[in-house]
Amino acid sequence: MTDVLPQHLITLHPDAQAQLFTAAHTANTFTDQPVTDEQLHAIHDLVKYPPTAMNTQPLRVLYTRPGPARDRLLTHLADGNRAKTATAPVVAVLAADTTFHDHLPTTFPIRPGLRDHFATDDTAREHTARFNATIQIGYYLLGVRAAGLAVGPMGGFDPAGVDRDFFTDTGWTSLLVVNIGHPGPDAHFPRLPRLDHTDTIRHA
Amino acid sequence: MTDVLPQHLITLHPDAQAQLFTAAHTANTFTDQPVTDEQLHAIHDLVKYPPTAMNTQPLRVLYTRPGPARDRLLTHLADGNRAKTATAPVVAVLAADTTFHDHLPTTFPIRPGLRDHFATDDTAREHTARFNATIQIGYYLLGVRAAGLAVGPMGGFDPAGVDRDFFTDTGWTSLLVVNIGHPGPDAHFPRLPRLDHTDTIRHA
Repeated sequence: MTDVLPQHLITLHPDAQAQLFTAAHTANTFTDQPVTDEQLHAIHDLVKYPPTAMNTQPLRVLYTRPGPARDRLLTHLADGNRAKTATAPVVAVLAADTTFHDHLPTTFPIRPGLRDHFATDDTAREHTARFNATIQIGYYLLGVRAAGLAVGPMGGFDPAGVDRDFFTDTGWTSLLVVNIGHPGPDAHFPRLPRLDHTDTIRHA
Repeated sequence: MTDVLPQHLITLHPDAQAQLFTAAHTANTFTDQPVTDEQLHAIHDLVKYPPTAMNTQPLRVLYTRPGPARDRLLTHLADGNRAKTATAPVVAVLAADTTFHDHLPTTFPIRPGLRDHFATDDTAREHTARFNATIQIGYYLLGVRAAGLAVGPMGGFDPAGVDRDFFTDTGWTSLLVVNIGHPGPDAHFPRLPRLDHTDTIRHA
């Protein structure tokens, strides 16, 4: 059983709490039920809304299905992540776009000089790209669950190798690899303990 | 009007889509309706579930209500962020705990040597803390919305100043300041444009 939080405190519908937060589990096996491009685009159309600094929206996604590109991606993963990743219907490489500033004249017209500011400050541009794309990863993982799919995020890969192999001349830099699909047999490990609020919250 | 995504693609209930993603807006003014500790703890009990690498859960939150600590926090904010932050019923400083590894014997017992690994590798520990806490910021901002509250995230502050003033000897390092409450009059700016999936998604 999972928590259902009291409705006077968490107004989100209990089914939605369960789907996104409390009952969802990381998946380690997947069925062969396909994930469509339509689903992937709908996930984008949901996840694009929550906030980023100066509306920068630097998260980018490279999707691979089984085939030659997937096989190349596998070579950059930690050994323990390869078998499950080989069988996922879709594998996403989540990346930060360090050329996000080229969109700012459209996406943040209220600060006309901002594109040029970032063009001349590589450190600020890289930090802004990585930090905001990483916040968006949180939105994204919940957004995939909103599509009725399970996620299996993996930090165990070689980011420099992936960037060389897939992102030359794009400005994209990889942050996380995520298996996506419908959970297969024995998909989930037992839930590990979560920290209590007494460990994570202070009041000043 | 906001998007309602087709239910065969996004299975999350349309009301929940709106509450968390499509209809929610960053708030820049707040009513004086209070936010209770019970609400803040319930947000934790929702947001604690989505995944982090090796179950590290490094996100920490310092909450301030109006008073001396809030006044000190204001001194570390960019000028343009002070007035609205002064009036928010609750202001959260979101931080990464670089001593997260002390919890690993409880939270990730399946890798007994992991605490010691992180204890001897400051670079890996700091990166893991910041990266995973930043993903959790994404979960957290949607979790506050799940409690029926609005968020106003602000990157415009002096993290080193906040760390010196509030986090000495804690291992916490500040990442983002977030105003929290019920939206007041003229709370929202007009929605800025979002990138299309043709700008953010590739297939390989």
